[in-house]
Amino acid sequence: MSHRVLIYSRFPKAMMVRIGQRFELMDAAGKPPHEMFTTEQLAGITAMITAGGTPLGADMMDRMPKLGAIVCYGTGYDGVDLAAAAQRKIAVGHSPGANASSVADIAMTLMLAATRRLLPADDYVRGGGWSSAKPSPMMRPQAGMRGRRIGVYGMGEIGRKIAARAAAFETEVGYFSRSRHDVPYQYLPSLEALADWCSVLMIAVRAGADTHHAVDAGILKRLGEDGCVVNISRGSVIDEQALVKALADNTIAGAGLDVFEQEPHAPDALTALPNVVLTPHIGGHTLESHTAMQDCVIANLEAFFAGKPLPYQVRGG
Amino acid sequence: MSHRVLIYSRFPKAMMVRIGQRFELMDAAGKPPHEMFTTEQLAGITAMITAGGTPLGADMMDRMPKLGAIVCYGTGYDGVDLAAAAQRKIAVGHSPGANASSVADIAMTLMLAATRRLLPADDYVRGGGWSSAKPSPMMRPQAGMRGRRIGVYGMGEIGRKIAARAAAFETEVGYFSRSRHDVPYQYLPSLEALADWCSVLMIAVRAGADTHHAVDAGILKRLGEDGCVVNISRGSVIDEQALVKALADNTIAGAGLDVFEQEPHAPDALTALPNVVLTPHIGGHTLESHTAMQDCVIANLEAFFAGKPLPYQVRGG
Repeated sequence: MSHRVLIYSRFPKAMMVRIGQRFELMDAAGKPPHEMFTTEQLAGITAMITAGGTPLGADMMDRMPKLGAIVCYGTGYDGVDLAAAAQRKIAVGHSPGANASSVADIAMTLMLAATRRLLPADDYVRGGGWSSAKPSPMMRPQAGMRGRRIGVYGMGEIGRKIAARAAAFETEVGYFSRSRHDVPYQYLPSLEALADWCSVLMIAVRAGADTHHAVDAGILKRLGEDGCVVNISRGSVIDEQALVKALADNTIAGAGLDVFEQEPHAPDALTALPNVVLTPHIGGHTLESHTAMQDCVIANLEAFFAGKPLPYQVRGG
Repeated sequence: MSHRVLIYSRFPKAMMVRIGQRFELMDAAGKPPHEMFTTEQLAGITAMITAGGTPLGADMMDRMPKLGAIVCYGTGYDGVDLAAAAQRKIAVGHSPGANASSVADIAMTLMLAATRRLLPADDYVRGGGWSSAKPSPMMRPQAGMRGRRIGVYGMGEIGRKIAARAAAFETEVGYFSRSRHDVPYQYLPSLEALADWCSVLMIAVRAGADTHHAVDAGILKRLGEDGCVVNISRGSVIDEQALVKALADNTIAGAGLDVFEQEPHAPDALTALPNVVLTPHIGGHTLESHTAMQDCVIANLEAFFAGKPLPYQVRGG
């Protein structure tokens, strides 16, 4: 008999197929599980897979009294109430580092596209502006990468990979993180100091209560009118309303965002702006990182059902 | 008395201002000079500035019998008939390397945007596809950079900078060039072998008769259905019709193009495709590379008017 696993969020089909070959899936398809399954069904669940950002609190855990493992697909687990899980002796696992390269790549993609104004440039060619030599303020030359100061906020696995990529573009890389790391980049003592120092702020910090709206109107003002902010972490780290205002009144020059406060929604005020590049949380969305994340999910679940500790357990989870 | 200089192509305003502070400009504004100036005026011209790609043949040189210096803005000089210039003892200068970093950056921007499908992704967010969970074949996960084979065609200054940037994305980098270079990348013995080996072909070769349509239907077929081609060199290096066909029938997966066969025009068949990213020849179009190119132009002109050899002379020019 194969083990039953609750699917709490919506996942790519390829993932469902692969996990489905090993376990019996109870797919809530992104809806509240108690709307999809009976109380009895929920009572039988011992393990579940969730996207780390999906809210998962004590009330939901209490609907599944036999729950022993919450397995997050991806690095993040900010939606999971870790204290509530610990209290109920539920192990929390994730996929550390499995998507770090892919996420760092999308961070670079967004930075380059935003600073070189790729979207207006493509539009200028497709719309005939180029062939008719139509003047376009968006096509004025911008500062390139060489000599730019790239500030990385957070120096975990993704932050390091962003820093290594950015340094190859002949930039200066600096960072701020709760603690200094043994990396060949300048350490700035605060987020304020990093924003003052850099012209591109790359947000790679782990989301949580301590980083909620860490990038606010004050930080954006410090970034300055030539500044650009890129977020591939979680939408909650930026005050989105302040960002929209800073972009609209040219307090900063541009932004590249893969994450938003209320996913899967990007506010209309943001999507109306020409100086932003927006992607639908696809940082970890590559073939190889999906495979690597699935490997972690499967390893965590197999260990759990074999009565062993999760190999990829969240610290404190 | 300041020296007179013919402006043969259209240039950014900032460049015209800076050059205009030092020399008296006769601006043909991109039109044939003999339509803008009298035979007498042309007969007095001793120096001119041109975009390297603009055709400049013997017939045009003969309208300016006193012409002693053709100064190209940028690295390229493929529009200039070097043999005709040599025959008339006209020195040809350019701006070697001044824009190499900027051009390498746009190559990376195009590669990342094309392989990660940035334009459809942005459109998916802005158009509401994401928030309504609308299925989109363009949003299927693609291969990321890690472990990808990046083939660089041409290993001049721009090719080296592309290779260094690409290697930082945890890729394997290979190259083909007329000769082997002392670089830490795998050398492939032919363009065919490079196309067979790589999944992204980065065209950084100098344009000329020997590279005209070097990337043709056969090379694109070797690149394969997961392959992507990026061109930041000159449009003439790719057979554009073959490229459109290969993109339309999925012989290759995508393309990123900063250059086109008939600039400033991109064919309608190309602009209609969803799997291409198009920029209006902005590779060297950053503040710092414009300044560096202007430095070379000014140094070449000042040396010429002082009766000295051009400091940035084209080899054989």
